[in-house]
Amino acid sequence: MRAHHPTLDQMRLENVLAALSNPMRLTVVRRLAEGGQHPCGSVLSGVSKSTLTHHWRVLRDAGVIWQQPSGRENLLSLRREDLDARFPGLLDAVLANLTAEEAEPGAAPGGRD
Amino acid sequence: MRAHHPTLDQMRLENVLAALSNPMRLTVVRRLAEGGQHPCGSVLSGVSKSTLTHHWRVLRDAGVIWQQPSGRENLLSLRREDLDARFPGLLDAVLANLTAEEAEPGAAPGGRD
Repeated sequence: MRAHHPTLDQMRLENVLAALSNPMRLTVVRRLAEGGQHPCGSVLSGVSKSTLTHHWRVLRDAGVIWQQPSGRENLLSLRREDLDARFPGLLDAVLANLTAEEAEPGAAPGGRD
Repeated sequence: MRAHHPTLDQMRLENVLAALSNPMRLTVVRRLAEGGQHPCGSVLSGVSKSTLTHHWRVLRDAGVIWQQPSGRENLLSLRREDLDARFPGLLDAVLANLTAEEAEPGAAPGGRD
């Protein structure tokens, strides 16, 4: 089954903000922001499959990532152009602050929400 | 009892994003972004007291608003300078996109989350 991805018109600001409001998902977004397609299993480590599935779904449903079937797994990529078109400046602001925050001591990874 | 407000160091990006990920709270933030202090009861209408209390707490705990006692009620204001200092560009990006989104047809108010 091909996963549902919202069109630009279907993307909602509050859903994108909610998708970005979790440390694990922010880690995913920062990783995918490096560009390219990444196999699901390579983006986060030490996380159960059900937790991964949950995070992919939240990110995908909000319009933050593409999740494309490829053989027995899925490839993930950031919908950067779509996000930039729909919510100009938002992803850049989040990524810039994410990088700054991670440079601080005491930044703790978070769990499923 | 004076409500807790996080210091700049205590503000976390994911908490601010979560606080902003709700349509009602976005409405509050857009209203407070006009400047000044606003009595709690004047910012959102048609919402139960418990729902209001919930939203003020989420916004306050994340560091998005000041909640100051004044007589029998609280005055709310946006911690704009703090947010801009801690997460440069983030609030501006959210507010700009919020204004753009609200100009679209089909923007629906949301409930408690």
